[in-house]
Amino acid sequence: MKAAIMGYGVVGSGVGEILLKNAALIENKLGEKIEIKYVLDLRDFPGDVLENRLTKNFEDILADDEVKLVCEAMGGTKPAYEFTKRLLEAGKHVVSSNKELVATYGYELLKTAKEHNVNYLFEAAVGGGVPILRPLWQCLGANHIERFYGILNGTTNFILTKMYNEDMPFDEALALAQQLGYAEKDPTADIAGADVCRKTCILASISFGKHIDPAQVQTQGIQDIHIRDVSYAKANGYEIKLLGFCEKLENGKIDAIVAPFFVPKENQIATVSDVFNGIVVVGDMVDEVFFYGRGAGSLPTASACVADLMDCAMHADKRKNFGWGERDAAFVEKHANCKTTYFVRGEGDINEVKKVFGDVTFLSLQGAPLDEVAFITAKETESALDKKLADIGNLHISAKIRVL
Amino acid sequence: MKAAIMGYGVVGSGVGEILLKNAALIENKLGEKIEIKYVLDLRDFPGDVLENRLTKNFEDILADDEVKLVCEAMGGTKPAYEFTKRLLEAGKHVVSSNKELVATYGYELLKTAKEHNVNYLFEAAVGGGVPILRPLWQCLGANHIERFYGILNGTTNFILTKMYNEDMPFDEALALAQQLGYAEKDPTADIAGADVCRKTCILASISFGKHIDPAQVQTQGIQDIHIRDVSYAKANGYEIKLLGFCEKLENGKIDAIVAPFFVPKENQIATVSDVFNGIVVVGDMVDEVFFYGRGAGSLPTASACVADLMDCAMHADKRKNFGWGERDAAFVEKHANCKTTYFVRGEGDINEVKKVFGDVTFLSLQGAPLDEVAFITAKETESALDKKLADIGNLHISAKIRVL
Repeated sequence: MKAAIMGYGVVGSGVGEILLKNAALIENKLGEKIEIKYVLDLRDFPGDVLENRLTKNFEDILADDEVKLVCEAMGGTKPAYEFTKRLLEAGKHVVSSNKELVATYGYELLKTAKEHNVNYLFEAAVGGGVPILRPLWQCLGANHIERFYGILNGTTNFILTKMYNEDMPFDEALALAQQLGYAEKDPTADIAGADVCRKTCILASISFGKHIDPAQVQTQGIQDIHIRDVSYAKANGYEIKLLGFCEKLENGKIDAIVAPFFVPKENQIATVSDVFNGIVVVGDMVDEVFFYGRGAGSLPTASACVADLMDCAMHADKRKNFGWGERDAAFVEKHANCKTTYFVRGEGDINEVKKVFGDVTFLSLQGAPLDEVAFITAKETESALDKKLADIGNLHISAKIRVL
Repeated sequence: MKAAIMGYGVVGSGVGEILLKNAALIENKLGEKIEIKYVLDLRDFPGDVLENRLTKNFEDILADDEVKLVCEAMGGTKPAYEFTKRLLEAGKHVVSSNKELVATYGYELLKTAKEHNVNYLFEAAVGGGVPILRPLWQCLGANHIERFYGILNGTTNFILTKMYNEDMPFDEALALAQQLGYAEKDPTADIAGADVCRKTCILASISFGKHIDPAQVQTQGIQDIHIRDVSYAKANGYEIKLLGFCEKLENGKIDAIVAPFFVPKENQIATVSDVFNGIVVVGDMVDEVFFYGRGAGSLPTASACVADLMDCAMHADKRKNFGWGERDAAFVEKHANCKTTYFVRGEGDINEVKKVFGDVTFLSLQGAPLDEVAFITAKETESALDKKLADIGNLHISAKIRVL
C-alpha cells in the first residue's frame, strides 16, 4: 500500500525512519508493504534517505490514486485542516499526530471520514508513544468512564521535576529545558497549558462522547507556581503536577480543567517524572488503570503514527466508531459549580483562618515566616472558597492550588 | 447478537453483570445489542437474574445457530479446550479469560479460529482488566519488542507487599491473603509461580511471534523468600517482586523466566503494590511503556471480556492476526546461557568473597549477624555464578535472587 508523509519535522521524519527500518516487521504483520511514495515539506533535505520522495505540492498526493494512506505530522490547523479534509474526501485514510487539529476539528473530520468510508486515526496526538486512545475506546469499551487525569506534556513535567527535586526556580528550570531542546524558544503553548488543554479535549471527547472544544476548558499553566509551594508539597507528602483533569458529574455534565495540582505521593500519577507522560483512567467496571511512557520525541510519537497506518491498512474496509459526538455547549459544567479541594498559602493569622474554615488541615514548612499560613480546604467550589477567603481578616493570598 | 457465557463463577458472573448493567452503552457503541441467551454451569443459581438462561448442557450452545459470541470463563483445560475448539469450528467467536488454556493451546486455537473465519480473543487472560494484549499487539505494532517484565499475579504481590511494608513473615501474609479471599485454599498455582508463568507465555507468544509453552519457562515462586532478604531490599533501595520476565537476546532467541526479583525503586514496576498488576514493555521505537491496574476481580476482568465480545461483534467479518507462530523448541535460550545480576546472601568471610568476586557491591543491614555477607554481583550466567560461589571458602549461601 502506498503512503505519504505530510510534514518532515520531528514526527514525520520518525515515521519515515520506522517505515524503512521496520519494513520487514510491518510487511510480515500486514501481509503487504507500506511504501512511502511522497514526503510533503516546503524545506529541502539534501542527502536525506527519502529525498527523492519529497514534494512541495500537496496536490501531487491528493491526485495520486495509488496513495491510500497519509500521515499528517504538520502541526497547526492551517493548512492541515484543509489538507486532511480534502484527503478524506478523496477516500484516503489519514492518521495524525496533530493535537491542535484533532482537538479543534475532531468531530468534523471523523464525520467526513465516515461519510467517505475511510478512517481518521490519531493515537499519537495524546501521550505520544503511550497507547491511550485505542485502549480507552476499545479495551475499556464496556465501561462508563467516570474520571481521567493525566500528565500530558513532557516539557512542563520536566520543569516541575527540576523545581521539585532540585529546588530550582521556575525561570531557571525553563531555561534548562530550552537548553536541552525540551522546550521551544517560545514555550507559551506548553507553559501556559494550551498543549495539555488540547490533549484533555481529545481524551474527553472520546471518554464522554461529545466534542469538547479547547475554549470550553478552563486552562491554567505552571508559570505562577512558586518554589515555596513546591516546598510545601514536598514537606507534606505531595508531588506538584500540571494535570488535564476530567470527571463526570452527578448532573450528567462534566468538569474539565487544566491546572497545576497537588498530587498525593501514593497516586500513580505522582511517579511520573521528567519528560514522561502518564494517564489514569477510571471506569465504572474496571476501576483505575494507568498508562505511562514517552509522551514526545521523534520515534516514540512516530511509533503510534505507524501503528495507526498499519491499522488503516489492515482495516481498510472497516470504520472505527469513536462515539465522538457533536459539540454541546452545556455539557461542560461551569467551573463555579464544580467542587475541589484546594491548597491555600497566604500571610495572615492562623486563628482568623480557623474562624472561617474551621477544622481544616494546616501544613507546616520548616523555616517558613511566622505569619505564613498554609492549609488544605475541604471540597468546595472555587467561588465558595473565594468568598470564605475574602471573609478572613487581613489575609493576603499568595497561592491557591487544586489538590487531586 | 446472541451470546453465551460458559462458567458462571467470579469472571462469568461479572460478564453477565456488565452486559446487563451497561447494555445501553454497549448497544450505543455497537449499533446492536449483545443478548445473553445461555449461561453454562453445572451448579444451580436459584434467584439469580440470569437463572432462566442457565443450562448444564454445552451442546445447547453449540447447536444454537443464533449464538455467535461465546465467553469462556471456565478455567482449566478440561473441558474448556474441547468446548472452545468445537465452538470455533462451528463458526462462533470465542473470548476467554482462561490463561491456562491460552498459554497451552493458544497457537492451535488461533489457527482453528482463522480456519473457520472467526476470532479468538483473550485480553482478560493477562492483567485482568489492564489493557495489555491489544496495546502490545496493535498500538506497539510497529515495534520489535525488546523486553517485557511484569507483576502478573495479585495474590503474590499482596503477600510481598505485606512482607515488605509490615515485615510480616511469608506464612502470616499468605494466611491473611487467604482470609481476605485473595488466595485460594490451595494457593500453589499462585505461590509457586504457575499462574505468572502462563501469563508470561501469552505475552511472550504475542511479543515474539512463536508459541512459548509453560514447560519452556523456568519458574520459581515466592515461597522461599526470607523476610531477611526483604529487609536487605528495603535497606538498599529495592522492592522485591515476583516477575514474569522476557528479553530478546542477541542470538535471536529469548530469555524467559518467572522468579522473584530485586527491583530498583526508580523502576515503574516498583510502584505496583497490593493486588495490582503492572507490566513494562520496551519496544525498539517507543522505548518503555507501562500498564497498570486491577489484574483480577470479577468486574475488572469481566470488563476485558466484554470489550473482546464487543470487538468480535464489531469485526465479525474481520480476522485479527496476533502473529502468534508455531512452537519452536530452540527459541527459548537455556537458562545456563543467560546473564543476570544477582543478590546473594550467605554466611562467611567477606574477604573470601572479595577474592573471588572482586569489587562487587556489598549491601549492609543494621543488626545483621557479623558473619552475614550480602552483595550484588556483576551480570553473569547462573552457572558461572554458582561456580564462583562454590570457589569461595566456607561460604554458606542462604539466598540468591535476581536483580532487575
